[in-house]
Amino acid sequence: MSRGILFVISAPSGAGKTTLLKGMMGRVTDIVFSISHTTRKPRRGEVDGVDYHFISKEMFQQMIAEKSFLEYAQVHDNFYGTSLSAVELQLQDGIDVVLDIDVQGADILRNTDSLEAAYIFISPPDLDVLEKRLRGRGTESEELISLRLKNAREEMEAASRYDYMIVNDMIDESTDLLVSIVLAERARAHRLPSGAAISNRVLI
Amino acid sequence: MSRGILFVISAPSGAGKTTLLKGMMGRVTDIVFSISHTTRKPRRGEVDGVDYHFISKEMFQQMIAEKSFLEYAQVHDNFYGTSLSAVELQLQDGIDVVLDIDVQGADILRNTDSLEAAYIFISPPDLDVLEKRLRGRGTESEELISLRLKNAREEMEAASRYDYMIVNDMIDESTDLLVSIVLAERARAHRLPSGAAISNRVLI
Repeated sequence: MSRGILFVISAPSGAGKTTLLKGMMGRVTDIVFSISHTTRKPRRGEVDGVDYHFISKEMFQQMIAEKSFLEYAQVHDNFYGTSLSAVELQLQDGIDVVLDIDVQGADILRNTDSLEAAYIFISPPDLDVLEKRLRGRGTESEELISLRLKNAREEMEAASRYDYMIVNDMIDESTDLLVSIVLAERARAHRLPSGAAISNRVLI
Repeated sequence: MSRGILFVISAPSGAGKTTLLKGMMGRVTDIVFSISHTTRKPRRGEVDGVDYHFISKEMFQQMIAEKSFLEYAQVHDNFYGTSLSAVELQLQDGIDVVLDIDVQGADILRNTDSLEAAYIFISPPDLDVLEKRLRGRGTESEELISLRLKNAREEMEAASRYDYMIVNDMIDESTDLLVSIVLAERARAHRLPSGAAISNRVLI
């Protein structure tokens, strides 16, 4: 069985990443989310073990000490982390995995030789649109919105370190594009069986 | 204006390349075929200046001498060549160009530093299917079909040198995949304006 592909996807808060990801996951088979651990409180509608593993700061510190995390980062006073063993098992099963992490996490991962991945950055069309989306969400304080906008500016500069960039102008087109990137990555020659294997298959 | 992307596409005869390419071109905007020069006779329905520039062997030799070709190759006793200046002008206009060349031509192009390109190999599902397609076409002699099958075996081994491989099992799925590859390549970060340009755009 061929190994799954790891898709590392980052976006400033409010870029529309969650909607895009859900749209893509509904249209592509054999692809799953990696489930992160976090110390932040669940938002309305979020389910433990589905959206995140919601854990205490004490538990998080223990997992850091046990080197359980592929990457972890502190964002807005909360911790987020991804368990290496969970992702690795999914990939070994031949399943493609979507890893939704911030640019700090992606930077760490990119410098980890052990895991090959396709890096996708989702950008809002501009900061005005981003601000509207953050306010429209209605779940965050004014201070937190300002902090997210400041972070967004910094994260934009990270976009050039990604393999792909989706400027999320129109959600339908952006979803099509994300689906296309996943399918195209699956067709990349180095992901397929080796040349010898292909020849055997064809020549029998 | 950003430069167009060059898509170099090869396939053994009968792999279904022409149908795939036409299907993709009908669904993607701002992409055109490069038109090759050839010394072979037009097949039924082929139009000079649309399908190929059909020229004499003498004219072809003159163009070789004038270094007019990006690549040229002899296949089945005929010459095929692609004019560098025509492709370059199309790319400079910001138009994506599909270059339909054989694996020999692609090998030469890959070793030419001047042009960056995305390389796509289209493979028939297996040689039995390829043979059926070649016979079904009904335009070629038994000898020519044998020669094409022999060439196909050799060309399969070249697949590993391409960026993408499409195994043309089902034409609709393969067309979707080719469309996806074109869209995904357009979203590759290094094809987009530089990080600085992106930041400016977003931060204004």
